Amino acid sequence: MTTRNHCLERDAQDALAGFRDQFDLPAGVIYLDGNSLGARPKASLARAQQVIAQEWGHDLIRSWNTAGWFDLPRRLGDRLAPLIGGRDGEVVVTDTTSVNLFKALAAALHLQHGKAGRQVIVTERANFPTDIYMAEGLTRWLDRGYSIRLIDSPDELPAAIGADTAVVMLTHVNYRTGYQYDMQATSALAHAAGALIVWDLAHSAGALPVDLHAGGADLAVGCTYKYLNGGPGAPAFIWVPRMHQPDFRQPLSGWWGHAAPFAMAPSFTPTEGIGRALCGTQPIVSLALVECGLDIFHQTSMEAIRVKSLALTDLFIELVEQRCAAHPLGLVTPREHARRGSQVSFTHPHGYAVMQALIARGVIGDYREPAIMRFGFTPLYTSYADVWDAVEILRDILDRQDYNVDARRDAVT
Amino acid sequence: MTTRNHCLERDAQDALAGFRDQFDLPAGVIYLDGNSLGARPKASLARAQQVIAQEWGHDLIRSWNTAGWFDLPRRLGDRLAPLIGGRDGEVVVTDTTSVNLFKALAAALHLQHGKAGRQVIVTERANFPTDIYMAEGLTRWLDRGYSIRLIDSPDELPAAIGADTAVVMLTHVNYRTGYQYDMQATSALAHAAGALIVWDLAHSAGALPVDLHAGGADLAVGCTYKYLNGGPGAPAFIWVPRMHQPDFRQPLSGWWGHAAPFAMAPSFTPTEGIGRALCGTQPIVSLALVECGLDIFHQTSMEAIRVKSLALTDLFIELVEQRCAAHPLGLVTPREHARRGSQVSFTHPHGYAVMQALIARGVIGDYREPAIMRFGFTPLYTSYADVWDAVEILRDILDRQDYNVDARRDAVT
Repeated sequence: MTTRNHCLERDAQDALAGFRDQFDLPAGVIYLDGNSLGARPKASLARAQQVIAQEWGHDLIRSWNTAGWFDLPRRLGDRLAPLIGGRDGEVVVTDTTSVNLFKALAAALHLQHGKAGRQVIVTERANFPTDIYMAEGLTRWLDRGYSIRLIDSPDELPAAIGADTAVVMLTHVNYRTGYQYDMQATSALAHAAGALIVWDLAHSAGALPVDLHAGGADLAVGCTYKYLNGGPGAPAFIWVPRMHQPDFRQPLSGWWGHAAPFAMAPSFTPTEGIGRALCGTQPIVSLALVECGLDIFHQTSMEAIRVKSLALTDLFIELVEQRCAAHPLGLVTPREHARRGSQVSFTHPHGYAVMQALIARGVIGDYREPAIMRFGFTPLYTSYADVWDAVEILRDILDRQDYNVDARRDAVT
Repeated sequence: MTTRNHCLERDAQDALAGFRDQFDLPAGVIYLDGNSLGARPKASLARAQQVIAQEWGHDLIRSWNTAGWFDLPRRLGDRLAPLIGGRDGEVVVTDTTSVNLFKALAAALHLQHGKAGRQVIVTERANFPTDIYMAEGLTRWLDRGYSIRLIDSPDELPAAIGADTAVVMLTHVNYRTGYQYDMQATSALAHAAGALIVWDLAHSAGALPVDLHAGGADLAVGCTYKYLNGGPGAPAFIWVPRMHQPDFRQPLSGWWGHAAPFAMAPSFTPTEGIGRALCGTQPIVSLALVECGLDIFHQTSMEAIRVKSLALTDLFIELVEQRCAAHPLGLVTPREHARRGSQVSFTHPHGYAVMQALIARGVIGDYREPAIMRFGFTPLYTSYADVWDAVEILRDILDRQDYNVDARRDAVT
């Protein structure tokens, strides 16, 4: 039977334990929501001061050159690429995940252009909604007979992909359940049917090792403000492998994607390479802070992070099932390691109220309809003792029914 | 004959002179590039610290509610609206100018949808290139026979707008020449032909009084990092008047524009009002800093700023023409007040080299092809003595030919 002392022993032997010192976390909080908003790297404050006071305030307009502002989306892209199996010149950090998905989906349809009868985008109903919404927006505006096919479970995927399929668009790790697709097998399934596949890595990048090339991905997008700790709403990323760059076209053809942005030519010519995924001028302060998160990842490996991530999620599942066995909690996240991301979700009939009670006691997870309590595990700043303590607080809340079933819903949860 | 003492006297009587203390400007610099990147409000450093250390670091995910992050695009929009003649609930600060122009142009085409034969977007060859590029991107992807008609001069506008015109898309103040369109007359011209008009206020917002309602605008976008001093690459804005909101549709239909973003419904329903111009999660740190610039504008009026702006640009033109009369400088900016923005552009055969020499001597303007030196005048932090001193340094450089005609071009100028 696991005890708190066992957890403390594991922390004492944890090679990643020291990384917590690089994050600013408030006292009295067990933060299990890094899958929604990553914790703050301590370095971010000094970096912001440098960008704001020195680069903006003192160096002013010259910083577009001298501080490398104009190249920042590419430079950060090259820093991020190794974490997802990308190569130099294949990633830019820019815009939002939604906007980048629009670009990727449009480009994928363009790459399929001319292939008769390929009019369907296959995705799943349980995908993060904005992905479906962006596909809706794109296909409705193109008005050329494209439709979206929503599957209700990953099992339906083989039957849903066929000769009519232009693009398969999936989120690698599901935001609610933590289910992880087999990227390689799923990409192969799409390719066998002549379709392209676009992966959303919002809950994968920084959470687990991803190898987009080995995984057979065609295009990918993702988020920097979750597991990558880039800051609230920090710019997202898009990956375009070199093989697709020559034919990569997207409608948001702004000046940052032009072959000669400062020639001020009156018609658009896309630049070579990944730069054609860029559009307009980027929010430099938020963008610069992304580097503070990436710097930390470069001090370890995604493999080491994954080992601890699985140990943390295994421990959480084990302890909840042992110590809260009397309560109606349902595990939603796959037990199988290969199918699991870096979060654990449990249902409870009063999931929202229980989560509010947890937050009030300093255990910060979040809630997603219907009835799902999400707990994200971030090996860089979460300890085994944190897991123990979180489960003990959950058990206490449930044992004493110390939650308000009429708790008011916040606007954003 | 104007002297430096006259300039000092005008500074002594200038009711706006005190605002310079709210900006951080380096010693020894006369900054005449606020039309490209506005100077740094001193308050921005403390605000960044608050957002990063307190809201992100300490309050973590809760700040989406408690710090009002989710409402920030709307709240800043309401703060910005009075500067452009907009009303509450008509503006959001979000995304980039390029992306917002894409939304506005798409929405304008949608509003015109079904009007037979209206297939042309009229704009001008001298428009800021990204505006043309975004129109190209949109029309090429729609692939429904839309075309772009480029005029070579504002004089050609009446002849260019006709029964085939869906949308007129213009930048109110030209980025190179400083030419200002008559918004009311031009909007009326478009409407008389049955067209809609989309205005880009990149060089107008914070530069001069704008009244979008009185000016007859249909939709507008603009920039916060120039005259509004929002910070490098700070998020842009889009204005949708209430009359067009019910039928406003745009293809970047992300979850922030959904009627119930946290219901996680699998299909898109646009929210009522200006929120439907939103798309994805915004870069909160950069976004929050926009408020520091807006706060300063709320301590004065655009009318007071315009009076000083015209006095500064008049003075600059007068002094350059008097004191640099021996040199081949050509005024590009209109002399007529009503046609002038808040910048002055002069051509010189060695414009690039002269501008580099000016920058080396602390007079920061910028250069735009072909042969144009741009000088932006920002009444909140530019004095009459600054104008005198800048012209004296220009005169000295020209008299002594103290510039390097082989100066290497920077990547970004």
